Amino acid sequence: MSDLVPVLKSLKKAQAVLALQTRREKDAALLAAASAIDRDRAAILAANAADVEQARAGGMKDALIDRLLLNNPRVDAIIEGIETVVRLEDPVGKVRSGWKTPNGLCIEQIAVPLGVAAIIYESRPNVTADAFSLAYKAGCAILLRGSSAALASNRALTAAIKAGLETAGIPGALELAGSGNRDEVDEILTARGYIDVVLPRGGRDLIRRVVENARVPVIETGEGNCHIYVDPGADMDAAAAIIENAKLQKPGACNAVETLLIHREALSSLLPVVAERLAGKAELRCDAASKAVIMGAGRAVPPGLTVQDAGEEDWSTEFLDYILAVKTVHSLDEAIDHINRYGSGHSEAILTNDLRAAETFCRRVDAACVYTNASTRFTDGAEFGFGAELGISTQKFHARGPMGLEALTTVKYRITGSGQIRE
Amino acid sequence: MSDLVPVLKSLKKAQAVLALQTRREKDAALLAAASAIDRDRAAILAANAADVEQARAGGMKDALIDRLLLNNPRVDAIIEGIETVVRLEDPVGKVRSGWKTPNGLCIEQIAVPLGVAAIIYESRPNVTADAFSLAYKAGCAILLRGSSAALASNRALTAAIKAGLETAGIPGALELAGSGNRDEVDEILTARGYIDVVLPRGGRDLIRRVVENARVPVIETGEGNCHIYVDPGADMDAAAAIIENAKLQKPGACNAVETLLIHREALSSLLPVVAERLAGKAELRCDAASKAVIMGAGRAVPPGLTVQDAGEEDWSTEFLDYILAVKTVHSLDEAIDHINRYGSGHSEAILTNDLRAAETFCRRVDAACVYTNASTRFTDGAEFGFGAELGISTQKFHARGPMGLEALTTVKYRITGSGQIRE
Repeated sequence: MSDLVPVLKSLKKAQAVLALQTRREKDAALLAAASAIDRDRAAILAANAADVEQARAGGMKDALIDRLLLNNPRVDAIIEGIETVVRLEDPVGKVRSGWKTPNGLCIEQIAVPLGVAAIIYESRPNVTADAFSLAYKAGCAILLRGSSAALASNRALTAAIKAGLETAGIPGALELAGSGNRDEVDEILTARGYIDVVLPRGGRDLIRRVVENARVPVIETGEGNCHIYVDPGADMDAAAAIIENAKLQKPGACNAVETLLIHREALSSLLPVVAERLAGKAELRCDAASKAVIMGAGRAVPPGLTVQDAGEEDWSTEFLDYILAVKTVHSLDEAIDHINRYGSGHSEAILTNDLRAAETFCRRVDAACVYTNASTRFTDGAEFGFGAELGISTQKFHARGPMGLEALTTVKYRITGSGQIRE
Repeated sequence: MSDLVPVLKSLKKAQAVLALQTRREKDAALLAAASAIDRDRAAILAANAADVEQARAGGMKDALIDRLLLNNPRVDAIIEGIETVVRLEDPVGKVRSGWKTPNGLCIEQIAVPLGVAAIIYESRPNVTADAFSLAYKAGCAILLRGSSAALASNRALTAAIKAGLETAGIPGALELAGSGNRDEVDEILTARGYIDVVLPRGGRDLIRRVVENARVPVIETGEGNCHIYVDPGADMDAAAAIIENAKLQKPGACNAVETLLIHREALSSLLPVVAERLAGKAELRCDAASKAVIMGAGRAVPPGLTVQDAGEEDWSTEFLDYILAVKTVHSLDEAIDHINRYGSGHSEAILTNDLRAAETFCRRVDAACVYTNASTRFTDGAEFGFGAELGISTQKFHARGPMGLEALTTVKYRITGSGQIRE
């Protein structure tokens, strides 16, 4: 704890001041931070170039280099992201409910900032600005713990934001955890009394580390093993378009579909169309019945189509790749049971024209987002209208699904009396 | 984990069924459970008599024996408690918010049961029925882990409830953790994937154990080091009545006042009246300035009054006793700083007629419940109108303040489309 304690104390102090600011004050500070990023663009890009060079020298893969890389359009996007947060309503001070008790007490439940947040994230430097701006708008101070690969970029971004806040805001409301060593993560996870929530954004290793070590509240933004179930009465053309979109539009996203569940009565009308759309683009991993529909005797296999036999492990794998597992089910119940067994509670869809099936699916499937007749790819803060996004919670506690500003608030009861005592 | 796993699996299965029940079905089950408790009253009282006898033989103190004891009026109160829960609105299925996105998706945020809850509690057997009935109404299964001292009582109560649910309900929705050994607590605290929330209700030892070992979400129902601050402009007679109420009405409650902060300009008008009211009933622990007002040369000390010198440790002590610490402050800011430093985030009150002081106090004091001109004793689920109470959360995450049914819910997003795909 020793290194971080002074930093955390100063964040806590800054947060107490930030908590009392009006929306106007917070928006002015955010705009000043955005301007400072624009002004310091050259320094930010130079720092990022150094990070990228070092990462390349260290043998980082191209896909990861791309996540790390900043350029002028990406800096523009960072600035626009902050401007989006400026346009969001202030979540603080909202009276969520209120009532009078029989003895005349007025009780109001009011949204207040959660306090000091910490985010642990990988090499995307845009998260630095996104997380800061959402936290600031929600009246929370934030400790940013990026990866060592992005340290120079994050330092330059944080310096620009702090410089902006010097002119109109509270520069102490953000701090970059600097050492880059892994012990620092444990320090953050155990900082009881200083940190009110930790948002880990990363792979399985980080999540496991968090589960094992966290002594402060955590919101898990875990994996998405998402399913689409197709009911016999579905519009099969629309279904095929949705499946293609959910698989191909961004396979690396947590809301991409991983397993397609097809009612056996829909197999022959749906699967050939899906195979046609995915041929040459994604591999299918099929159970026997679905494979037979595509590859069986007398079938015209679409050119370029790859079909493998699905194994048990495919049902529980988040491929994050151009791979789609396909399973035949005999009933809606079987589909729901499969999803509740193998799913990760992220995003699940039914494609159907049967009202009762849609209703049953929505009620029984245990997930953050349950869709009827739409692509799972919509599980996203921006798509939901929350502006920027802190991540997608796959836990049920405190926040579930795409997290916007509200996830960074808690409540306070304000009770106003006129001398009431308890009988 | 080995012993509890089958129990937890069966609770999870029962919860999946309970989650889909209508309010009418759940209310009928609760009434059947209440009737069964009434019917099995003799067996419950006999089991409790055995617990009490054993506790007496083991040297349990009278105050604790009283907490353990059941009699006919207390069984009546248990039954009435269940009937109160029947009258509460069903929290499940409530659409908390909903909107349409530009592309025509309808997004609804719907309250759903949190899942499987576990409660770890001490010897009051009424908690068994209270916790069960709230959980059941919220669609949650519950694992009840009472103290070994109340094991026979809790077994009899649980058996009656289960018998009632056999006729109209889901008897698998509650289970009593039976072994009574302390390892069981650790098993509960680490049952990831089985338990969605643990509610520890107990002393510091339990809370410390929970903080150290919990790997499942916890709602801390911690201590209440509550303050009343008296501003110069307050109505001093009303203030004295509120202070007396908050200290004497139930000193063992977590919402009783422990420290009185008095603005120096209010000292001489308030403190003699307070001393008069508390003389012979509660001990005062005073700082020098407040002591001088009561005991100084020429003062008439009320008969029976005990005054000690306050030490630093008194500011951070939850006495839960007929003791009131008294401190003089020079400003509202000093009072707020003292509360935010020493308070436990439970219930804090300002007594004032100054609107700006009330507003500043409410905004700056960081606590679950902030009062203006009323006794802190109102922080209570029943007083708030929540029916029975699961406890009072002193954490900011997921639930804060008195917890009713809503604390046992989470949300699910239901997204209804007509073929939407993401561009």
